[in-house]
Amino acid sequence: MTIRALVWNENVHETTQDDIRAIYPDGIHGAIAAGLEELLGDDVEVRTATLADPEHGLSEAALDETDVLLWWGHIAHDQVDDEVVARVQRRVLGGMGLIVLHSGHFSKIFIRLMGTTCSLAWRNEGEREIVWTTAPGHPIAEGVEQPFVIDRQEMYGEHFDIPNPDDQVFISSFAGGEVFRSGVTFTRGRGRVFYFSPGDQEYPVYFHPQVRRVLANGVRWAAPTPGERRTPEVSNPARRDWS
Amino acid sequence: MTIRALVWNENVHETTQDDIRAIYPDGIHGAIAAGLEELLGDDVEVRTATLADPEHGLSEAALDETDVLLWWGHIAHDQVDDEVVARVQRRVLGGMGLIVLHSGHFSKIFIRLMGTTCSLAWRNEGEREIVWTTAPGHPIAEGVEQPFVIDRQEMYGEHFDIPNPDDQVFISSFAGGEVFRSGVTFTRGRGRVFYFSPGDQEYPVYFHPQVRRVLANGVRWAAPTPGERRTPEVSNPARRDWS
Amino acid sequence: MTIRALVWNENVHETTQDDIRAIYPDGIHGAIAAGLEELLGDDVEVRTATLADPEHGLSEAALDETDVLLWWGHIAHDQVDDEVVARVQRRVLGGMGLIVLHSGHFSKIFIRLMGTTCSLAWRNEGEREIVWTTAPGHPIAEGVEQPFVIDRQEMYGEHFDIPNPDDQVFISSFAGGEVFRSGVTFTRGRGRVFYFSPGDQEYPVYFHPQVRRVLANGVRWAAPTPGERRTPEVSNPARRDWS
Amino acid sequence: MTIRALVWNENVHETTQDDIRAIYPDGIHGAIAAGLEELLGDDVEVRTATLADPEHGLSEAALDETDVLLWWGHIAHDQVDDEVVARVQRRVLGGMGLIVLHSGHFSKIFIRLMGTTCSLAWRNEGEREIVWTTAPGHPIAEGVEQPFVIDRQEMYGEHFDIPNPDDQVFISSFAGGEVFRSGVTFTRGRGRVFYFSPGDQEYPVYFHPQVRRVLANGVRWAAPTPGERRTPEVSNPARRDWS
Repeated sequence: MTIRALVWNENVHETTQDDIRAIYPDGIHGAIAAGLEELLGDDVEVRTATLADPEHGLSEAALDETDVLLWWGHIAHDQVDDEVVARVQRRVLGGMGLIVLHSGHFSKIFIRLMGTTCSLAWRNEGEREIVWTTAPGHPIAEGVEQPFVIDRQEMYGEHFDIPNPDDQVFISSFAGGEVFRSGVTFTRGRGRVFYFSPGDQEYPVYFHPQVRRVLANGVRWAAPTPGERRTPEVSNPARRDWS
Repeated sequence: MTIRALVWNENVHETTQDDIRAIYPDGIHGAIAAGLEELLGDDVEVRTATLADPEHGLSEAALDETDVLLWWGHIAHDQVDDEVVARVQRRVLGGMGLIVLHSGHFSKIFIRLMGTTCSLAWRNEGEREIVWTTAPGHPIAEGVEQPFVIDRQEMYGEHFDIPNPDDQVFISSFAGGEVFRSGVTFTRGRGRVFYFSPGDQEYPVYFHPQVRRVLANGVRWAAPTPGERRTPEVSNPARRDWS
Repeated sequence: MTIRALVWNENVHETTQDDIRAIYPDGIHGAIAAGLEELLGDDVEVRTATLADPEHGLSEAALDETDVLLWWGHIAHDQVDDEVVARVQRRVLGGMGLIVLHSGHFSKIFIRLMGTTCSLAWRNEGEREIVWTTAPGHPIAEGVEQPFVIDRQEMYGEHFDIPNPDDQVFISSFAGGEVFRSGVTFTRGRGRVFYFSPGDQEYPVYFHPQVRRVLANGVRWAAPTPGERRTPEVSNPARRDWS
Repeated sequence: MTIRALVWNENVHETTQDDIRAIYPDGIHGAIAAGLEELLGDDVEVRTATLADPEHGLSEAALDETDVLLWWGHIAHDQVDDEVVARVQRRVLGGMGLIVLHSGHFSKIFIRLMGTTCSLAWRNEGEREIVWTTAPGHPIAEGVEQPFVIDRQEMYGEHFDIPNPDDQVFISSFAGGEVFRSGVTFTRGRGRVFYFSPGDQEYPVYFHPQVRRVLANGVRWAAPTPGERRTPEVSNPARRDWS
């Protein structure tokens, strides 16, 4: 079954800063979408949407056609409409997969789903990040090199204020000595959520073959189980005779 | 060290319905507070607060003196001020314990900390509830009878839409055949959260000795580790020389 | 990709007791195998093996061709050769899926993978079991009725002495009031493990359409991620130059 | 209540190698015991036992008087009697706390409780280890510096083949770029288990003030809940009338 992936990007850096556009001429969303198409081929149908689109490209109709939503945001988190965030949350709880990327840790949708501050330590000096697999049998780690290296990256370090994840898939170390739980999964309602930290507007991380592999695996993993997609809701059943 | 517990109750049923006041003449908060004092003695210092108090009795100053907050609400969830909810959430993330009771599953604070709908199935026909311990070595289960019976209770049933809990302490069955994860724990930030479903305004559940035992244990368990209490926050450390 | 499932059954009750053979004329393994073939069709290739087979039908060669092993045992747990158990454990740690059924909670392989006693409460009076889904978005719950009823079953009750599971998929209640975590998952090494309690030699549970649905879903879920299957082992890497 | 801690050490390196005895003149167990006494004072009563003692110092009588057992072993894992291992396991399942140290990851008791290979990557070149707290509200992290540095240590790296831990308390990075889940907790039966990797016979790690703090916190955390200590066992209850 074809997975319908929607790559959402605030697309602000790329449209306002020449140096960023030079790295991501098609936007971060374009780079991510290309990676998914390259690795998943006919198994995926990829669309993109950005902050500037009407309803940020996240109308009910758009979400109706989305199995997995990927989310990249950074300097414009507060420009995302609260109503759209609530809508996306309902969809996740109803079964839509969500992959939150890098600085998306501070997005409204991630904070709402986690219930914590989602704060962390950071330093932007283009440090070497080494990504280690801690769950080698996990579908998201399939075919991923152990470890893989990103030559230059923003440092994200612990303490990362998130709830206990369901699965701990990747942990990164940085040249400066910090560590970070860089790949973690959660279940919220019927939906599967994957947070993956590698990826930044200043470094061409989304062209890295191993990062692309992780994102492709993540899309497969987060795709909802076939069948009913419905946000959980309260019910008031009559007492039944089970015999 | 004395644990400072604050029992919060919306206190609406008791002040507006004679039949409820007959069950809880000192309010649900009064019954819970009495239970804690009975079982924890000098180890606890109990205060109470209600919706009608200024700032709902949950000012910064009041929270400064609170180690564990117990929360009971039902028909007035939406009257709780959003700013107070955000304040309580920050405190929990900073280390304050939180015990959410029964219909508090739909409180703003619980929903914000969970990130899910927190919906469930319910039926109010005064059914027998049997509470089974699934984690006999857990501090919250200490000295609790396996199982214990509540003669008449509102039924709460699965699916209960919560994230995977850290620990699964109690599961209940009801006369009608339903089951419910009636005692579950979570970590959010530095804070420990315990949800316990037995307890309702129409039944004298908070006078039940086993329920009182669970709440007393819960207060001990949720009390913060001595030392720093601080909401996690973002940091931007310089690169250090570790040698 | 075709999943190669191997249904293992001690096959003692069926070969020594007429009343059990009347319920399971093709053995419990035969009933389970038929259910998998019925529901998974060409997606699965099912074989069976029993205690009486050479090496219990679990030679290295047989396991080489097994993606998911289903395990049913009861009165002959101690007749399973320790070397075979160690072999199966290594395979699970290397990525082979394992589904442990009903009284298999006391099998050597399950106890070894859990590290606990795996003890529980039981009573065999043909009680009604109601199976509730607690993780409606989980692949194992796909298309399963909420709840489903097994008219007559052996009661399994808490406390079930297992480690905290990864996912809590089903909880059962029994006519006698007991509850049981009847569907739980674990990760061990690269392997996925699913324990499912409904199923007994004295009741035709493995012909129940909902039980068959769960087992078929379980086989899909437990099948290893494509790629490397290898038991984790110690390594002594030289220090690398990551630049 | 005084916690009765028993520090177990194989005590082979210290009695056979002058260079190791120079680092740990009172044995690794002596150094650990001194640290616990220093930090916990009258709250703890510390004894030690070694491989050479009758029954390795782990008789039923000795375990009767033990609340928390700390375990250090390395080159003599296979000399530990299987019957003693089974006895310790039963005690843990019955509520005794267990702290497994460093190379104890390959001890019989840890492997039996985990069900996995407990394998990892290692390299002994005296590398700098930085230990980061990932659960700042956890009792085991109380008062521990974020991060703390061990100047020279054996490297332990991922993949560490353990089941998903209950709580992830510390993650370490090494000068060579590797990462390791260096502090993790588990529940097995009624018992609490803490694995902590810093500590080696060739480096004076057990004199490090932060390591001593972690172990003291660990002893407090792993101490059993007052009341019944009993290994879980099977039961066959009659059907009860709950009314």
